[in-house]
Amino acid sequence: MGWGGVIGPQARRLCYKPLAPFPNFPPHHFFLQVRVESVKMEVVKNLAILGATGSIGQSTLAVVAEHPQEFRVLGLAAGRNVELLAGQIGQFQPGLVSVQDEEAAGRLRELLPSGNTLQILAGPQGAAAVATAAGVDLVVSAMVGAAGLEPTLSAIQAGIPVALANKETLVAAGSLVMAAAREKGVDLLPVDSEHSALMQALQGQRREDVKKLWLTASGGPFRAWPADRLARVTPAQALRHPNWNMGAKITIDSATMMNKALEVIEAAVLFGVPVDRIGVYIHPQSIIHSLVEFVDGSVIAQLGVPDMRLPIAYALTYPRRLPLSGPPLDLGQIAQLTFEEPDVERFPSLRLGYEAARTGGTMPAVLNAANEVAVAAFLEGRLPFLGIPRVVEETMGAHTPRPIQDLAHVLEVNRWAREYAQRLIEEKGATNLS
Amino acid sequence: MGWGGVIGPQARRLCYKPLAPFPNFPPHHFFLQVRVESVKMEVVKNLAILGATGSIGQSTLAVVAEHPQEFRVLGLAAGRNVELLAGQIGQFQPGLVSVQDEEAAGRLRELLPSGNTLQILAGPQGAAAVATAAGVDLVVSAMVGAAGLEPTLSAIQAGIPVALANKETLVAAGSLVMAAAREKGVDLLPVDSEHSALMQALQGQRREDVKKLWLTASGGPFRAWPADRLARVTPAQALRHPNWNMGAKITIDSATMMNKALEVIEAAVLFGVPVDRIGVYIHPQSIIHSLVEFVDGSVIAQLGVPDMRLPIAYALTYPRRLPLSGPPLDLGQIAQLTFEEPDVERFPSLRLGYEAARTGGTMPAVLNAANEVAVAAFLEGRLPFLGIPRVVEETMGAHTPRPIQDLAHVLEVNRWAREYAQRLIEEKGATNLS
Repeated sequence: MGWGGVIGPQARRLCYKPLAPFPNFPPHHFFLQVRVESVKMEVVKNLAILGATGSIGQSTLAVVAEHPQEFRVLGLAAGRNVELLAGQIGQFQPGLVSVQDEEAAGRLRELLPSGNTLQILAGPQGAAAVATAAGVDLVVSAMVGAAGLEPTLSAIQAGIPVALANKETLVAAGSLVMAAAREKGVDLLPVDSEHSALMQALQGQRREDVKKLWLTASGGPFRAWPADRLARVTPAQALRHPNWNMGAKITIDSATMMNKALEVIEAAVLFGVPVDRIGVYIHPQSIIHSLVEFVDGSVIAQLGVPDMRLPIAYALTYPRRLPLSGPPLDLGQIAQLTFEEPDVERFPSLRLGYEAARTGGTMPAVLNAANEVAVAAFLEGRLPFLGIPRVVEETMGAHTPRPIQDLAHVLEVNRWAREYAQRLIEEKGATNLS
Repeated sequence: MGWGGVIGPQARRLCYKPLAPFPNFPPHHFFLQVRVESVKMEVVKNLAILGATGSIGQSTLAVVAEHPQEFRVLGLAAGRNVELLAGQIGQFQPGLVSVQDEEAAGRLRELLPSGNTLQILAGPQGAAAVATAAGVDLVVSAMVGAAGLEPTLSAIQAGIPVALANKETLVAAGSLVMAAAREKGVDLLPVDSEHSALMQALQGQRREDVKKLWLTASGGPFRAWPADRLARVTPAQALRHPNWNMGAKITIDSATMMNKALEVIEAAVLFGVPVDRIGVYIHPQSIIHSLVEFVDGSVIAQLGVPDMRLPIAYALTYPRRLPLSGPPLDLGQIAQLTFEEPDVERFPSLRLGYEAARTGGTMPAVLNAANEVAVAAFLEGRLPFLGIPRVVEETMGAHTPRPIQDLAHVLEVNRWAREYAQRLIEEKGATNLS
């Protein structure tokens, strides 16, 4: 894969190559001249998509639908939204799917046409089987939360490149994942718009010339709200993101700015840059997706309309780019891009992210796990908005960080942090955590 | 040069290379083990700077002064500012200089310490001799106007890479210059901040994925002025540029937007992109220096504080970057970047640039020559501000474009256009050209 740039000349060279001369004849009799008018190579990339029914999964399938000659969907893994999954199965004809559990698998089977021979698996092993199925060229890892960790690691260990939208994988187990990717020589291609922007801005640049990475953040729906108003934020308010249409978990993370905290940690791991050389700008228009500052003062930025198909398509076909439908970026019409320093007083999650990254080891996994529990509690009305970073901070404070040993260690820390945060929310209740 | 990235490993490999075994002894006796703790290669780049006393020349020498271990100044060519040149000679100790004419050469000699053995040349041949002197690794071509054309071509024909700040070279003789550069396999490195930005944004990207180039323009000091007020612009007003501190000619070109017209033509030639795939945004803050739009909708931009040392240093050490002193880009403090469509009614020069580029052949040379004459007349009070594009348009209208044959052809067209424009200004006078 990835050799689109040389298909033309390479194919032509192969076709012009003279036949080996037959030993009994003078060699010049045996050159075969072939005139090639045009060569069309069909290099189809076989995909396994983990989190197919989520926002990233759906956008990935939209890219596939726009370029059917480029991709084949070998496998899909999803959670419990079997109605949507059944439609995707009908459209993309994967050979293998996996869902959350046996109950969901049963419901899915009922939705498919009778006589369908599709293999349906369930649970984490099912997702890992989809990720590592024979013939998979690229895994799109877009399951939400720590659930995406195991199948992603399975793919890497099987030597399969991963387009990574599951940021918890790098946050919770960055050292493990990067070590496995290095060992297997496997590409990890970021799908997050910010990290895709950094990857694009770093293309063709010397790593030693990089001074600082800058992530942009929309600031979420409460960017300009005073602290007392933040205390009364409801789930419905927090779910309305100004620029991006995303899943519930990431939309809340965006409102608390924990999303940016996770992205800072992810960028440090992915690009091997100390966290204190990663900055954040609030950029409400979400047009500049991130920037790289170099030692000479030059800054390279990647811009685009807020459309997840762009970073997804880039990860799918890197280093090539696919034409995508949709309106181009029109800076004349946008007219104005603004920037602010983030306010870590009103949005302490960002500060917690830097602290966890500086501490390293198991601490980022604790931050991530506690946040998952706190966000779920907030969405269920069991925790106020400002309680989310409080739960994360208290859980981090109760944890003694250790270097990560292996996946079991990460999962154990994840379980501990989830339980601790859960107990915190139950015991202290809504009033003491606001 | 330009292999800074491999100095370390390469040097180490050379040092570890075993001695050739002496034929009478078993070979294993003759391996010399060398342990290299650190290798410091001193790869000095020898520069010839054409236009040393101009704005770009001075900024180039500022970069050299900041990194004396990187560069040696072999030669300087300047015009008539021998006082400044004498100071530069004292500081950078070139072996060879050239000035506008013998009179200036005489004045320069008087300014230098007695007993100085510096070789002083004069005229176009002198500048060409500086550009092609033995040992020159890179020519910085920063003479103003068509005067820079001949020495730049001489350097290319001598196989010497050129850092090109003289945009008239590519505007007037693009096809010649690019053909010579291709034939000699010589790098042309743009120094203009816009073209440097495009070059930086194109690094590591596939040429076939480029959809459009976008140049930014400050809009100059009269960006928001109504047409009737533009009619009364004085040279003093036009010489006050809001962002860049540059020479007089380019500052007036910036005020008429002819500078952007020349840059559009230059970009088309340098990057081999049809002029109708090059757009212009007015961006008054001059922070985003230019952008590249790709087929997938992604846009890569280069940003920086308005400081010509950045693109100059990049051209000098490409693909490496040198640390440069000065404040970093602080988007939080800048707070706002704005963009507008250019108004070709009030600033017809931009329209003329596109027309000249579409016509091609000798037409861009005519646009450039007529503009040089018109700007000089404006600065001398012989032509109103709005007369500048009028003179250019009328001269273009009187010209029958032809494909460029050779340098003599370009110089002949240049002479014709200058004379025609001059006559136009003298005959019609100030009143009929406003």
